[in-house]
Amino acid sequence: MAGKAIFCEKPIDLDINKVDECRDAIKGTSVPIQIGFNRRFDSSHSKLQQANINNEIGKLEMLIITSRDPEPPGLDYLKAAGGFFRDTTIHDFDLARFILGDDPIIQVSAFGSQLISEDVKKVNDHDTAMFILKSKSGVLIHINNSRRAVYGYDQRVEIFGSKGMMISNNQTPTSVQKFSEKNTESKDPIHYFFIERYEQAYRDQFNDFVDTIKNHSNPSVSFEDGRNALILANAAYESYNSGKVIDISYD
Amino acid sequence: MAGKAIFCEKPIDLDINKVDECRDAIKGTSVPIQIGFNRRFDSSHSKLQQANINNEIGKLEMLIITSRDPEPPGLDYLKAAGGFFRDTTIHDFDLARFILGDDPIIQVSAFGSQLISEDVKKVNDHDTAMFILKSKSGVLIHINNSRRAVYGYDQRVEIFGSKGMMISNNQTPTSVQKFSEKNTESKDPIHYFFIERYEQAYRDQFNDFVDTIKNHSNPSVSFEDGRNALILANAAYESYNSGKVIDISYD
Amino acid sequence: MAGKAIFCEKPIDLDINKVDECRDAIKGTSVPIQIGFNRRFDSSHSKLQQANINNEIGKLEMLIITSRDPEPPGLDYLKAAGGFFRDTTIHDFDLARFILGDDPIIQVSAFGSQLISEDVKKVNDHDTAMFILKSKSGVLIHINNSRRAVYGYDQRVEIFGSKGMMISNNQTPTSVQKFSEKNTESKDPIHYFFIERYEQAYRDQFNDFVDTIKNHSNPSVSFEDGRNALILANAAYESYNSGKVIDISYD
Amino acid sequence: MAGKAIFCEKPIDLDINKVDECRDAIKGTSVPIQIGFNRRFDSSHSKLQQANINNEIGKLEMLIITSRDPEPPGLDYLKAAGGFFRDTTIHDFDLARFILGDDPIIQVSAFGSQLISEDVKKVNDHDTAMFILKSKSGVLIHINNSRRAVYGYDQRVEIFGSKGMMISNNQTPTSVQKFSEKNTESKDPIHYFFIERYEQAYRDQFNDFVDTIKNHSNPSVSFEDGRNALILANAAYESYNSGKVIDISYD
Repeated sequence: MAGKAIFCEKPIDLDINKVDECRDAIKGTSVPIQIGFNRRFDSSHSKLQQANINNEIGKLEMLIITSRDPEPPGLDYLKAAGGFFRDTTIHDFDLARFILGDDPIIQVSAFGSQLISEDVKKVNDHDTAMFILKSKSGVLIHINNSRRAVYGYDQRVEIFGSKGMMISNNQTPTSVQKFSEKNTESKDPIHYFFIERYEQAYRDQFNDFVDTIKNHSNPSVSFEDGRNALILANAAYESYNSGKVIDISYD
Repeated sequence: MAGKAIFCEKPIDLDINKVDECRDAIKGTSVPIQIGFNRRFDSSHSKLQQANINNEIGKLEMLIITSRDPEPPGLDYLKAAGGFFRDTTIHDFDLARFILGDDPIIQVSAFGSQLISEDVKKVNDHDTAMFILKSKSGVLIHINNSRRAVYGYDQRVEIFGSKGMMISNNQTPTSVQKFSEKNTESKDPIHYFFIERYEQAYRDQFNDFVDTIKNHSNPSVSFEDGRNALILANAAYESYNSGKVIDISYD
Repeated sequence: MAGKAIFCEKPIDLDINKVDECRDAIKGTSVPIQIGFNRRFDSSHSKLQQANINNEIGKLEMLIITSRDPEPPGLDYLKAAGGFFRDTTIHDFDLARFILGDDPIIQVSAFGSQLISEDVKKVNDHDTAMFILKSKSGVLIHINNSRRAVYGYDQRVEIFGSKGMMISNNQTPTSVQKFSEKNTESKDPIHYFFIERYEQAYRDQFNDFVDTIKNHSNPSVSFEDGRNALILANAAYESYNSGKVIDISYD
Repeated sequence: MAGKAIFCEKPIDLDINKVDECRDAIKGTSVPIQIGFNRRFDSSHSKLQQANINNEIGKLEMLIITSRDPEPPGLDYLKAAGGFFRDTTIHDFDLARFILGDDPIIQVSAFGSQLISEDVKKVNDHDTAMFILKSKSGVLIHINNSRRAVYGYDQRVEIFGSKGMMISNNQTPTSVQKFSEKNTESKDPIHYFFIERYEQAYRDQFNDFVDTIKNHSNPSVSFEDGRNALILANAAYESYNSGKVIDISYD
């Protein structure tokens, strides 16, 4: 190994065995590695994570993540993507792990449908999916995903606990409201896709990575974070295929 | 006089002299009279009035009333209405007096335009108007009126003070939001006109009037309230005609 | 049978066998029966159902129902309630069936936790629950329930389809916003519980029932609706107990 | 003159005579000058200006600007600032001119109060002010200003016309909503002051100025814009002192 700092886009690999080979290879080295889970760096989402740490909503009881793309990718992308759960939901699995902190996810149940894209059918993938996960402490987590939200990139997170609820809502380019002659109040469309929605998060993530290198500190998104999200995606497929709730093993 | 309780729609009369004749006639009688200023009974508007009394926003410094009808009335109505300030703004003058409580309005400046309706031009009236008023304690009050808001009956009140701001916003029939394929978030149109918007206020006002009669209590909207709102409307016309700020006399 | 019109609170019975006995007993009679699923009569929720019928959001792909009570009931209530899924979620199962129209629910997966109430633990019930259901056409449905939302009675419904999304949001008593000296914008608390939130729905449901009797028309919420919701609740328990996705049989 | 491009903070000068001397001095030169009216570069405010140009709300009939600082400046600043109307409202006069386009403001009426700051009283200035202006075409414009809004830097613009209304609303750092145990929905505080609120506008304005120099194009905010805003501020003082509506002369 060249000893260079590594910034690795998610997923580390689609195959957990190859991920584990990497894991062995880097064991004992001090090379900083950061996994590209950009949503952790979004100021609204991370405000929820901080609120949970700081007990602002009391004991966490439910976590709900809505994550929908504006339009499905093409056939070539779909062939290489490794399946909807590993390509898309993996971001939400990581976001759930981020917010839960040290309360690990222990169970998952997964549902998928083919409702939107002919290309998705061709590769026998899903374009619509829902998940329930359970943490060790009993927190229930719901995730829903779609390959097509005609109104834009729908990215919402909700935490619910013994002392209240917080929602990280969608965002619009401007703060303009319009009340039109059709008697309707309307706002800006929400951001179109991840480039617009997470622009600042990408910047902040990159700065964080640079700080990690400069300060020889631990990466804020570790190799294990990347591996654990893939384990959840794999367990979700196992649930989908078996019709069963799957107990997660991170070993 | 028959001694019957009187519920009088605003304005008492368009002519202050006739109002003063009525005033003399009822002096000394114990007949309950309520003036039809229905907006005082709206739960959102009256929440602002209560907040001011209870010092929730500290010392009141500004009051802003937006009041716009969905469409202009016909020529016959306009001919009999006594002018935009006396027909429409009189409601807002009363609402301002209601919220200000015992801090009387002492000055007014009025602007009017003919921008919307040919019928309004025929009777040499206004369809668009703006006002600034000043109270004895220095509170500045803005009112704006239009005969036509294509998006519905626009009824908003804002109070601003040393400890904060409160807004009584427009209301919609349902709580449904729509995010459409045109990439826009929209809500219900706001209520169409006063019948829909102030339905509950009308009921509450009527119940209040019945209570007044049953309990022999003082009317919550008095004859003097009706007279004072007309005095403000007349002063507004004086300001418009002279291009001057008018000092109000309630004698 | 006395031939009197029947208004039956949900659930018809906690035991599907007793429900089927009733079903046999009323077979062939013309007695109007309405089941007390009041949420169908809420103007915001039913606007979503109408939108789905009228293809306003295109092909329905996801349905998400959030339904949380303000505080848990006491031990006596819990002992008689028949379990969280049959006592509470049954309303949401019915609302899902109402919105889906003639697209039947064919699968369910259920999760429950004991996080809130000691009394709930005593009767070995749940106070926190999540569900995923699937319809015949592939629509994915999520429901989440809690016995305690400290901010009030949280009742939200979201439909998502090929042409857009609609949300039936929570409602507040007034339309007042406050911007306080603590630098925060706040609104009214949402309604406290079902009496406040569904007051108009209860009125409308009662009027609908009276119309049914007067017009000899079919009830808008039928005995079969009550039975089918119970079947879903029972299947949810079967899923929870077995850790499996359950295929629904309505026979 | 050195021939260097000039970026001039508002106001050009507090004294119109000195401004006119500058005007004479630069007459005939080709030095690019931009006046620091940063709000023109805010994407939400400028969206309203574009909407007006593009006839999105039809014929403009009303324009309402709310502009309130979070807290009053100190005595030294107040002594040098040239009065509330020239120091603060001048931004709003310019924003009004920007949105109105080629429809000049022809009248102004001004009100001021001393309600907030002892320092303001010492220099015999205002801390609370309201204005009505009228354009040549009859558009009515309202501006309100305060030296202290405890909830943050309140910057709202509303345009109202024959086909609808648009509002440029306040903005918050994140899109998080909180529903707390005190039964209240709340949002982030709005931005604290101009540095935060107009950060992007300042960047965009600077880039625009650089483009002006590179492309030898006309400045988007001209010397005349700076001079005209001062003329409006001076007329506002004349109105305040005389209690009269003042007709504006730009000569």
